[in-house]
Amino acid sequence: MDTKLKSLKEEVYRANMMLVEHGLVTGTFGNVSGIDRKSGTIAIKPSGVDYKRLSSSDIVLIGMDENIIGSGLNPSSDTRTHLELYKAFQGIGGVAHTHSRFATAWSQAKRPIPCFGTTHADCFRGEIPCTGIISDEDIKKDYEAGTGRLIIDTFKGRDYQDMKAVIVACHGPFSWGDDAKDAAGTSVLLEEIAHSAFLSRLLDPSLDNIKKSLLEKHYLRKHGKDAYYGQGKEK
Amino acid sequence: MDTKLKSLKEEVYRANMMLVEHGLVTGTFGNVSGIDRKSGTIAIKPSGVDYKRLSSSDIVLIGMDENIIGSGLNPSSDTRTHLELYKAFQGIGGVAHTHSRFATAWSQAKRPIPCFGTTHADCFRGEIPCTGIISDEDIKKDYEAGTGRLIIDTFKGRDYQDMKAVIVACHGPFSWGDDAKDAAGTSVLLEEIAHSAFLSRLLDPSLDNIKKSLLEKHYLRKHGKDAYYGQGKEK
Amino acid sequence: MDTKLKSLKEEVYRANMMLVEHGLVTGTFGNVSGIDRKSGTIAIKPSGVDYKRLSSSDIVLIGMDENIIGSGLNPSSDTRTHLELYKAFQGIGGVAHTHSRFATAWSQAKRPIPCFGTTHADCFRGEIPCTGIISDEDIKKDYEAGTGRLIIDTFKGRDYQDMKAVIVACHGPFSWGDDAKDAAGTSVLLEEIAHSAFLSRLLDPSLDNIKKSLLEKHYLRKHGKDAYYGQGKEK
Amino acid sequence: MDTKLKSLKEEVYRANMMLVEHGLVTGTFGNVSGIDRKSGTIAIKPSGVDYKRLSSSDIVLIGMDENIIGSGLNPSSDTRTHLELYKAFQGIGGVAHTHSRFATAWSQAKRPIPCFGTTHADCFRGEIPCTGIISDEDIKKDYEAGTGRLIIDTFKGRDYQDMKAVIVACHGPFSWGDDAKDAAGTSVLLEEIAHSAFLSRLLDPSLDNIKKSLLEKHYLRKHGKDAYYGQGKEK
Repeated sequence: MDTKLKSLKEEVYRANMMLVEHGLVTGTFGNVSGIDRKSGTIAIKPSGVDYKRLSSSDIVLIGMDENIIGSGLNPSSDTRTHLELYKAFQGIGGVAHTHSRFATAWSQAKRPIPCFGTTHADCFRGEIPCTGIISDEDIKKDYEAGTGRLIIDTFKGRDYQDMKAVIVACHGPFSWGDDAKDAAGTSVLLEEIAHSAFLSRLLDPSLDNIKKSLLEKHYLRKHGKDAYYGQGKEK
Repeated sequence: MDTKLKSLKEEVYRANMMLVEHGLVTGTFGNVSGIDRKSGTIAIKPSGVDYKRLSSSDIVLIGMDENIIGSGLNPSSDTRTHLELYKAFQGIGGVAHTHSRFATAWSQAKRPIPCFGTTHADCFRGEIPCTGIISDEDIKKDYEAGTGRLIIDTFKGRDYQDMKAVIVACHGPFSWGDDAKDAAGTSVLLEEIAHSAFLSRLLDPSLDNIKKSLLEKHYLRKHGKDAYYGQGKEK
Repeated sequence: MDTKLKSLKEEVYRANMMLVEHGLVTGTFGNVSGIDRKSGTIAIKPSGVDYKRLSSSDIVLIGMDENIIGSGLNPSSDTRTHLELYKAFQGIGGVAHTHSRFATAWSQAKRPIPCFGTTHADCFRGEIPCTGIISDEDIKKDYEAGTGRLIIDTFKGRDYQDMKAVIVACHGPFSWGDDAKDAAGTSVLLEEIAHSAFLSRLLDPSLDNIKKSLLEKHYLRKHGKDAYYGQGKEK
Repeated sequence: MDTKLKSLKEEVYRANMMLVEHGLVTGTFGNVSGIDRKSGTIAIKPSGVDYKRLSSSDIVLIGMDENIIGSGLNPSSDTRTHLELYKAFQGIGGVAHTHSRFATAWSQAKRPIPCFGTTHADCFRGEIPCTGIISDEDIKKDYEAGTGRLIIDTFKGRDYQDMKAVIVACHGPFSWGDDAKDAAGTSVLLEEIAHSAFLSRLLDPSLDNIKKSLLEKHYLRKHGKDAYYGQGKEK
């Protein structure tokens, strides 16, 4: 196999294990993928495999045409959702999906995650959008691709680069980024802000988003050309 | 001892330890059993033994007639509840009972656990039923068998194969499956969905179950003849 | 030093460390003691010592007259509360005090912990009583002994042997038992039932105690002459 | 480098790692600093560096004039907040800032953390104040120094020595102390009391602060000239 694809599999394997290390996983839930844009190849977690037994060689390679490359395991049942996102969001290199507890709680409540503080604003430019509920037609016809389209519809008129996560109503969170690791890292941050937003909401059910000036200040302190957080090269 | 029964004891031991590994246990609470249907022999955790000191040789073998096979420790005080379930649900091979925190919280609130999302629907076909409160007559006469009958009554007109768990009012959850490991694994998933349903309920006290089409889609994606989740042979 | 007292120190040391192992401790909060009734000697955690640096030789021996035996560290600032309990509850051999999170939350809310389920009933015969608020007079005069008297007042007309814990209003839980280990173990169980009672209360703010017949059944299944839980000799 | 500054870096490194050990950190959030008052040198965590890769040599030295001493990484983006605190609170030797979950939840709810019990009173003399929301002017002009001024304004007429923490509205907690370790230790205690205050608030939304006599008793049992908690020399 191509060295590039082999290292993509390794990277995707590690990103999947990040979910476990950060406590975002129960059972076999969750999946992370990465894409090699040049060859149009996606590497993704196999379906229903226990994380404890997962190795980088189990990661499945698949083309944009959904053909599995080489022999191997079945890819994640959510693969078509990932594919839709890669097609619509051309600038991304990785996608993560989890059933992490607090992000899922907000998804199940069918509510966007409000931006109650600067921790949130450091990572996401405003409240985390929540999709509508998937239509019965999409459920019947092509459920996983339909989930992808639902996300893409939610992002009409929105920049997917400054809001790298969404919660799918009645389901759970998806996130994306420059690569698989970045996407998984965003899932970790999303769970953290979902948790503290939950707590703040309970303390004050009428609590509102922080003011825009504060949101913008924190977001732009870390992102974009005038960012001054961090060590420059590293994100 | 029969090799088959020896390996049943080993399997039941491991399933009991799964409860500990997943943080479902405080003190000596909880018990998992498995059955060898051919010989009608049940292997179950001994009563009140610390999990730290438990070994597979401590697992108690008992016949359907409640006679202990060989010398050994006293079986779990909940043994009769397990027996009732094995008699009524002929297709099951394992039973697990825990006092896991969130499933117990719903049990104590005497409410079924609603199906708020696809994580739940992946595992259970609808809301997790809650039994009625055990009658004073059953408390006095034969409490543990009465608890079993309470569960069986709750499943009248219901398929125990697509709803492998129940919460007993004022008490806690029971689950079952093909074998002891499967039953314990269902307890782990139950606790997870009990947790996120709790969180969603707090975010929106009027939240309702997800629509049936979405429930069925997710449940049947993983279960039954048209399932396409996983790697085929493995569950 | 007397072998008996040396082993008492060792036992009290281990009981204190149990609090840490079960996650009941932040900082230097919490203290467990044990008593040798024959010589009237109490062994107790020293005041304000980090659990990480604690060893069995640091455990302080003190007489019922409050004199420190041998050279050593200052005893826990709560020592007089322990002394009052040992004097009033002649059948106990150990006392534990923690600031464990959920038991403390109920204490701060100045409410008894209701008995919402059989997990609770397995351990405590009814709701965990909450003391009144300590009087300004007792705060000024002899605060720690006053806390002990507050607990003893709360137990007037009650059997301290079937309710081995209390929560002190605005403060936190105390528990006791046959020895230091037993008292610490009760603290662990208390925190667990405080946690699930909290969760059930949030699910249903109007939730009431379980019925008496069920409480009695579970309590007496484990305690007293007709108990049939466990392996007989062991508790 | 000066031995004193080298050991300051080591001390500040360890204090930063304390935040991780106590579970107060997600991602690269949080920063602790320490000051050498004689030379006017501050040692602080570098900006955006993963705690896993952090070593004591990465700790940045900076003068009160904000000049970095020696070559090195960029200091924490919150450095100016620390500087303001060191200038205003001349008796402190360390500052810690975290995004710990429960303290942040209260910050986001823009509410002081009430003093519901003696655990709180042992550590802080009354409710933990919450700042106002930073003005748009300060956001634009000099955000991080503005955050420092906001804290200092909140402490007008208050003693920063018996209230070593604050929560910044819409942001999170800051704490301080005799040195970096002490400041980080206060963050750990703050998170604990933020957690149990949250739980008590949910049990009783109308709950009020404990009475002053009890607050003073507990605070002064541990602090000031008449303190009798602990072993004398050690805090």
